Amino acid sequence: MALDSLFDPDGVAVVGASATEGKIGYEAMQNAIAYDAPIYPVNPSGSGTVFGREFVSSVTEIDGPVDLALSCVPGPVVPDVIEDCGRAGIGAAVIFSGGFAEAGEEGEQLQRRLVEAADDGNVHLLGPNTSGFLRPAEDLHATFATGTEDIRSGNVAIIAQSGGIAFATAFRAENEGRGVSAMVGLGNSANVGFQEAIDFFDTDDQTDSIVLHVEGTNDARGLLETCQSASTPVVAYNVGEQDVGDFAESHTGSLTGDHELYEAGFAQYGVPTVRSVAELYDAGTALADCPRPSGPNVGVVTAQAGPGIAITDRLKADGATLPSLSDETQAVVEEILPGITFSANPVDTGRPMPEFGDVVEAVARDENVDIVLVYELFEEGLGFPTETLEGLPEATGKPIVFATGGARAALEPELEKMTECDIPTYTTPERGADAVGALVNYAKRNPLADAVESEVNTDD
Amino acid sequence: MALDSLFDPDGVAVVGASATEGKIGYEAMQNAIAYDAPIYPVNPSGSGTVFGREFVSSVTEIDGPVDLALSCVPGPVVPDVIEDCGRAGIGAAVIFSGGFAEAGEEGEQLQRRLVEAADDGNVHLLGPNTSGFLRPAEDLHATFATGTEDIRSGNVAIIAQSGGIAFATAFRAENEGRGVSAMVGLGNSANVGFQEAIDFFDTDDQTDSIVLHVEGTNDARGLLETCQSASTPVVAYNVGEQDVGDFAESHTGSLTGDHELYEAGFAQYGVPTVRSVAELYDAGTALADCPRPSGPNVGVVTAQAGPGIAITDRLKADGATLPSLSDETQAVVEEILPGITFSANPVDTGRPMPEFGDVVEAVARDENVDIVLVYELFEEGLGFPTETLEGLPEATGKPIVFATGGARAALEPELEKMTECDIPTYTTPERGADAVGALVNYAKRNPLADAVESEVNTDD
Repeated sequence: MALDSLFDPDGVAVVGASATEGKIGYEAMQNAIAYDAPIYPVNPSGSGTVFGREFVSSVTEIDGPVDLALSCVPGPVVPDVIEDCGRAGIGAAVIFSGGFAEAGEEGEQLQRRLVEAADDGNVHLLGPNTSGFLRPAEDLHATFATGTEDIRSGNVAIIAQSGGIAFATAFRAENEGRGVSAMVGLGNSANVGFQEAIDFFDTDDQTDSIVLHVEGTNDARGLLETCQSASTPVVAYNVGEQDVGDFAESHTGSLTGDHELYEAGFAQYGVPTVRSVAELYDAGTALADCPRPSGPNVGVVTAQAGPGIAITDRLKADGATLPSLSDETQAVVEEILPGITFSANPVDTGRPMPEFGDVVEAVARDENVDIVLVYELFEEGLGFPTETLEGLPEATGKPIVFATGGARAALEPELEKMTECDIPTYTTPERGADAVGALVNYAKRNPLADAVESEVNTDD
Repeated sequence: MALDSLFDPDGVAVVGASATEGKIGYEAMQNAIAYDAPIYPVNPSGSGTVFGREFVSSVTEIDGPVDLALSCVPGPVVPDVIEDCGRAGIGAAVIFSGGFAEAGEEGEQLQRRLVEAADDGNVHLLGPNTSGFLRPAEDLHATFATGTEDIRSGNVAIIAQSGGIAFATAFRAENEGRGVSAMVGLGNSANVGFQEAIDFFDTDDQTDSIVLHVEGTNDARGLLETCQSASTPVVAYNVGEQDVGDFAESHTGSLTGDHELYEAGFAQYGVPTVRSVAELYDAGTALADCPRPSGPNVGVVTAQAGPGIAITDRLKADGATLPSLSDETQAVVEEILPGITFSANPVDTGRPMPEFGDVVEAVARDENVDIVLVYELFEEGLGFPTETLEGLPEATGKPIVFATGGARAALEPELEKMTECDIPTYTTPERGADAVGALVNYAKRNPLADAVESEVNTDD
């Protein structure tokens, strides 16, 4: 793969490595050594060792395989470092420093020099002006940021224009007791941008969905086409609904684009969009964990009417359809719960009860339903009906999503069980509805052509 | 106060109390006994004791003061129970059972009989068709729901049409490590509705803000006028943006009203509105913890540009104004951080650093700024600048709100410190922006007339 040297390196050089705590070159070194590969601190004025590794004066002096350089040096020196990387056969570099295209004309000139050096030496650049990337499953923390060891391994890849948003989303994952397959801050995207990164993680075994943070890009069509051709589902958070131009330009050197055009473009190319970091990760987990939805028809089951109404309201606003359940399903539901409050869709059971899982299963098996959304306030005595639910998404081929509310200590172990059942479970009614909204909008624009194809194949 | 018998009772009767685990009359009894007052299990067919209290055959047979009855009996029997309550001088009852106005014509008739009995006997009714209420600080759990002992005491009162939403919001508070001064599910609002409940908690010492969940009410103007005349800030979550009429009517017997009219009405009467349970509680905490904002002008300080842009975008969508900072403030900021990335507003410090608190203070003291919103990814080595921030909201009279991201274990103790500083702190960029959005919309419609008055008074 084109970006193997960046995201799957055989050795790492930390350029500007430092033995002084608090310096970027120290933090990057401390993060890097967790990775199972040779790590080389590079600093012409360094002597002795740092974290047990001997200082090397230049990347060209390294004796051993190195694919990736983490550049911790100030902006003006970076083009020379990248020239050296090219000479040393280092295929990729992460450039933390700013002062490039985001910083006026002088910076733009510096970035042009940087890109020339990279092109001449065949070096893939992440950044400049980025906080780097993480691949927790590989213990690869290519960043100077601290506290990243708490970010767990998971199946959602975050690709963000802003390193700050990348971290905000990754910590959101951690707060939810989940993780990420990768977290990438693109920064100025000098020669590695959305397209290259999406292409890489589209074929990554650990990645089941890709979530994007987009401020603006010079090649919107290229981005959209890459998303469309990816076989991994993609969701996008496009910032810039309001005019934040001045401030945004000072950030990654990209003007925020026309928000409405982006939203329309993403919709047309099959990418659901969201309006916050929390929604972005929620949508990512729904798309990563669930079977691919075959349509926008949502069957809702709720154990409490009020949250059921809030969910129905929000689902409709998100573009979902609530079909009537088949007569057969309604009959099954009424047999399970005689005198049930409301059985059309939503199904309102009035309270959770031991038969709750059977009701969910009946709705999941309804031919009118493509996706199931369930709400129940958590009751410790009952728990979630995981015995009935286990295997149900796979057996029906349909996404089943839960929303709930309960005390944290009681909920947490139960939420892990639900994750094991591939049933994403969210802790407020609206989060569940919005996650299903992403599934709905994905289904609308990505008809299951290959599912039909694979059915044909089974006849062989 | 009119509703003291309901929310501050001297004794409680559990009508339909049961010694059989899992029955509503058992759960209600188990919850009730935590309250420091005489608790009487009432059941004509009960014998012996339950939770150490001797069964009484009727509320009229209770020997001692009783203000509140928790009715756990089936709907058709309830009017008789309320008649007995009136006879026994019991001033209030919570009615858990359904089958009233939400359940067709027969139910409506039953509800009319119930209200007549209540009016004749001067009984305030919460419900019918409610899961009850909580006042955690008093250990008063007037509900049959389980797990409510985890819901902590706090300074936000939840008044919800739906008991399910009431609990969803209260558990959200618990998940956030916070609490509620009260949680009330109104249900069918037979004779205690929004107005009575708001009036009660407006004068409650523990309550600093009131958050409402509204599906629909027969007296929208009365509700709005009550909100406006309350001196405690009120926020509302009005469900029913989309058509959910059928299902909603089956719930509390009220049709969801015209969403746009409600939104316009709330705006006109000074009540910020939100779109989810999470936003509702977040807005409630901002209004409860912060000084009352004097205007919509927000000064933004961010340690990371990307989240700063997302926040700015969202703030503007929420109706906030971002004024230019005064030349004086910009000079102070640039003295603290020479060569700072962006100092106009937002102030972008590029990274958190030891001087971060001084920058926040400079912006808080700017005369153009009414509210301060700060974003910083949490760094364990630095922590939040609580030493500088402590007392700042009080000293400036301005709300200071933080948003952040970080690993949960590292963040949690720090978030408690921030709460102690009266600085509400939210764990994603957009949550912070939306909480400030509620402050902005409150300030716009509630000019600080009494602040001027109190200034005049200080001249006396």
